[in-house]
Amino acid sequence: MIKITLIGSGNVAQHLIKAFEKSAFIELTEVFSRKKETLENLLDSNKITTDFANLKEADLYIIAVTDDAINDVSKQIPFRDKLVVHTSGTSSIDTLDNKNRKGVFYPLQTFSKNKAVDFSVVPICLEAENKDDYNILEIVASSISNEVFEISSKQRKALHVSAVFVSNFTNHLYQIGHEICNEHQVPFEILKPLIQETADKIKTLNPNEAQTGPAKRNDIGTIEAHLAFITNDNQKNIYKILTQSIQNNGKKL
Amino acid sequence: MIKITLIGSGNVAQHLIKAFEKSAFIELTEVFSRKKETLENLLDSNKITTDFANLKEADLYIIAVTDDAINDVSKQIPFRDKLVVHTSGTSSIDTLDNKNRKGVFYPLQTFSKNKAVDFSVVPICLEAENKDDYNILEIVASSISNEVFEISSKQRKALHVSAVFVSNFTNHLYQIGHEICNEHQVPFEILKPLIQETADKIKTLNPNEAQTGPAKRNDIGTIEAHLAFITNDNQKNIYKILTQSIQNNGKKL
Repeated sequence: MIKITLIGSGNVAQHLIKAFEKSAFIELTEVFSRKKETLENLLDSNKITTDFANLKEADLYIIAVTDDAINDVSKQIPFRDKLVVHTSGTSSIDTLDNKNRKGVFYPLQTFSKNKAVDFSVVPICLEAENKDDYNILEIVASSISNEVFEISSKQRKALHVSAVFVSNFTNHLYQIGHEICNEHQVPFEILKPLIQETADKIKTLNPNEAQTGPAKRNDIGTIEAHLAFITNDNQKNIYKILTQSIQNNGKKL
Repeated sequence: MIKITLIGSGNVAQHLIKAFEKSAFIELTEVFSRKKETLENLLDSNKITTDFANLKEADLYIIAVTDDAINDVSKQIPFRDKLVVHTSGTSSIDTLDNKNRKGVFYPLQTFSKNKAVDFSVVPICLEAENKDDYNILEIVASSISNEVFEISSKQRKALHVSAVFVSNFTNHLYQIGHEICNEHQVPFEILKPLIQETADKIKTLNPNEAQTGPAKRNDIGTIEAHLAFITNDNQKNIYKILTQSIQNNGKKL
């Protein structure tokens, strides 16, 4: 059994708690949360601490907090020479304080509070300073996921930026679609199979092959009709810029 | 059996041919294609014509061609008072020539040549000038799909604009993610579960609830780090505009 202490109570922390609690190889020794109540529906109350001074010894400390807080939290761990990792896609391994052995345990998925996640298909990107520490992280990651990758800090940054495009920005485009449907009294439901199919296509086609639509066809009439139809300036601007980007596909502007 | 003549040989036409050929209620009498070869792998050669003058009588004529060509094609149909529909999301019902009864048969899905589509879950948006014609379209649509909707020309325009955002533009964001991964030698595969989950979340959460990421959290440090990391000016511009749009969410700019 690998003993893990988790620090954090946000979306990532909560989904990790659920995944670790199911794993036969992991003992979730303790979780640090600023407010005990946040986690009481997930965990025995005696496993939650609100005081860094009370942290128990463990094989691995996982810091799942906002990027800005990682360095400060890593300093507050009251031990030396322990394996301490963060879960951030964007922070370097060196954000962690030097007093402990450093690593990264980055689950590349979008976590929402009200939506369960099947962790077995969540890619986990690992980084460590030496082979022994990497092996520990690999055992932990493999105990909750089938998709484990060794990824450097630079590669992780590229992945995180890409993830913002394919997930956060994509979801925002769903929201714009939702707003346009609402404005014209059309059920957004009608678009859901299209959203699924657009994502499904990427399993078998590369995005360039999968591209369709008026911008791809260079169908100026439809593009102009759409721009005339959209009443919101922000939506209009996004429509123009993404259309242009598709039309200029491949060229560096 | 409802007799259908299809005019067109592009993605939509080809997927409709496959769907109609499977239906027990539809007899696909004839398909018009400018080049016979385009459809010979889908259809008996004697069912394909390249000459409008040869078109046989049918209960329904479906024009599945580019928007610009709909009006011209509708004029070339050598009959009067037949039910003639187009499959466009963006053209009005009045794009069709007046000599025949007009309608719209718009399957709201993204069709790629190399990817099969399960038509039973494709929403089909119908419009007709009278109840009898609507009933014919409804029988045809219901014979290939479980999702049939009566949608006016104005509503269809809103749906089509929304579809461009949630599908064409989304796919372009996948492509940008793909480019960034390639540039930094990271396998794009790692992002595929995230792409699926982002689409899956929309089944149960509305897009506003589902929104995550640095823009939503207003995490300026990460946003600035990402902008510094992105080398392509076009990608950088799209990152900025979509981030700002998420930050200003709900406000009309």
